[in-house]
Amino acid sequence: MTRTELITEIWKKKSFLCVGLDPDPSKMPEIFRNSQYGVVEFCKHIIDATKEYCVAYKPNIAFFEALGREGWDVLHEVADYLPGDCFLIADAKRADIGNSSRMYARAFFEEMNFDAVTVAPYMGSDSVMPFLEYEDKWTILLALTSNKGSSDFQMLRDVAGVPLHEHVIRTASNWGTPDNLMFVIGATHPDMLSDVRAMAPDYFFLVPGVGAQGGNLQSVADAALTDDIGLLINSTRAVIYASQGEDFAEKAGEMAMGYRDEMRVFVEGTDFSDTLGITGY
Amino acid sequence: MTRTELITEIWKKKSFLCVGLDPDPSKMPEIFRNSQYGVVEFCKHIIDATKEYCVAYKPNIAFFEALGREGWDVLHEVADYLPGDCFLIADAKRADIGNSSRMYARAFFEEMNFDAVTVAPYMGSDSVMPFLEYEDKWTILLALTSNKGSSDFQMLRDVAGVPLHEHVIRTASNWGTPDNLMFVIGATHPDMLSDVRAMAPDYFFLVPGVGAQGGNLQSVADAALTDDIGLLINSTRAVIYASQGEDFAEKAGEMAMGYRDEMRVFVEGTDFSDTLGITGY
Repeated sequence: MTRTELITEIWKKKSFLCVGLDPDPSKMPEIFRNSQYGVVEFCKHIIDATKEYCVAYKPNIAFFEALGREGWDVLHEVADYLPGDCFLIADAKRADIGNSSRMYARAFFEEMNFDAVTVAPYMGSDSVMPFLEYEDKWTILLALTSNKGSSDFQMLRDVAGVPLHEHVIRTASNWGTPDNLMFVIGATHPDMLSDVRAMAPDYFFLVPGVGAQGGNLQSVADAALTDDIGLLINSTRAVIYASQGEDFAEKAGEMAMGYRDEMRVFVEGTDFSDTLGITGY
Repeated sequence: MTRTELITEIWKKKSFLCVGLDPDPSKMPEIFRNSQYGVVEFCKHIIDATKEYCVAYKPNIAFFEALGREGWDVLHEVADYLPGDCFLIADAKRADIGNSSRMYARAFFEEMNFDAVTVAPYMGSDSVMPFLEYEDKWTILLALTSNKGSSDFQMLRDVAGVPLHEHVIRTASNWGTPDNLMFVIGATHPDMLSDVRAMAPDYFFLVPGVGAQGGNLQSVADAALTDDIGLLINSTRAVIYASQGEDFAEKAGEMAMGYRDEMRVFVEGTDFSDTLGITGY
């Protein structure tokens, strides 16, 4: 999916919501816990209930690998079911020496149909480039993550006072462009969001941490919304585990619709004429 | 596997060789290229031919995921075949927020029988702790990697001149101990190895980069060998792709034996009496 196609979907759906798929059998309704393939069914119901309200899906690969021997097959099944008009993110946080990163890129971009993979920056350029080399595919690089441990290394400052996550953003901007590179910027650092936006004004941010992790949509938008939205805001647990009852899909849909309704205001307040050649709705 | 058990294996086999398993169908003998399960057969032959000479195996998960839908099943097959007296490393370079890292730990430590997982430090403490919480299991944290891109971020210095990889080592030493934590230190930085050893005198290092990547066993040992060896030196391509002919397994065995013969000198020069209560051979 190209940048223009992504922005068009945002404009059409009045949403920049990404729904995370972290299928943990212990949190699903009981009927899906019997077999590995219950996970597939659970995910299909969640996808059906939410696809009208979100522009992206983000399966977290950890939850599939934890399913055991069939986990990768289950992931392929779910990936095959994801709607083609959505931006599909493999939340894999991969990176290895070039030779091995190439294999990860092949796994997610060729063996599966993902548009994007989340990638960890620690190993540097040759660990990231194999993902960037695919046409119309995206690398979403960890920069300032939403978790508590983000303060351990990401905020270390060099002699000039520049924190590591800024080095990552500035260095990676030489590897990719706003057409094939995004950054993960957690919603749990509202005070730092506008600084980060200032150093990467044209890049999309994938923003986790809204919902269960405590981040807030309004404060993210205030700090980091751009002329073409420039944000994919992820919610996982608040959507997919909104209910453990028979109404789990309905409740997931309601949660996603609620986010869409909040986001609609921002989308309708954005002038897409430069990006999309659109004037008015 | 405990630290004492690992050192005992090193003493018994007179080797601290780790054989990397990066099964790339395009580099294997032709007979194994027909199906995903040819990879299993290839790996089994390599394992049979080398297990006498190495104390560890390190499948790189990228190569299995690139096999497509059956990749994870193939990995499980290979993991099941790895010898129980070897230290088994999932070279996965994982890490995510705590909630998700827990799933990766489950995948490699519970759903498979690995002793260790390679873990990326960028996301900090809560992304690493779920791996450290397993008894008799190991976390092998990326510190100073062997690839070219290691210079992009790992060598950035703070205001006191301390490079990032040193922060990683010092900080992580508060999370784990020499009984459950190792560091990845590439053989391609011989000039920096003794500094790194000085800051982590009691930790095992997993050392990639010998062989195809250009590192040298003697210089690694000179800089970083400890009283109980303290090194697992990995070789992948030089061993498993020593030949593409019918003699591929024989040649892999010869390469591994060659490394063992080089390593024997160091093992026989080490006094294990403090660690193992052994006096003489």
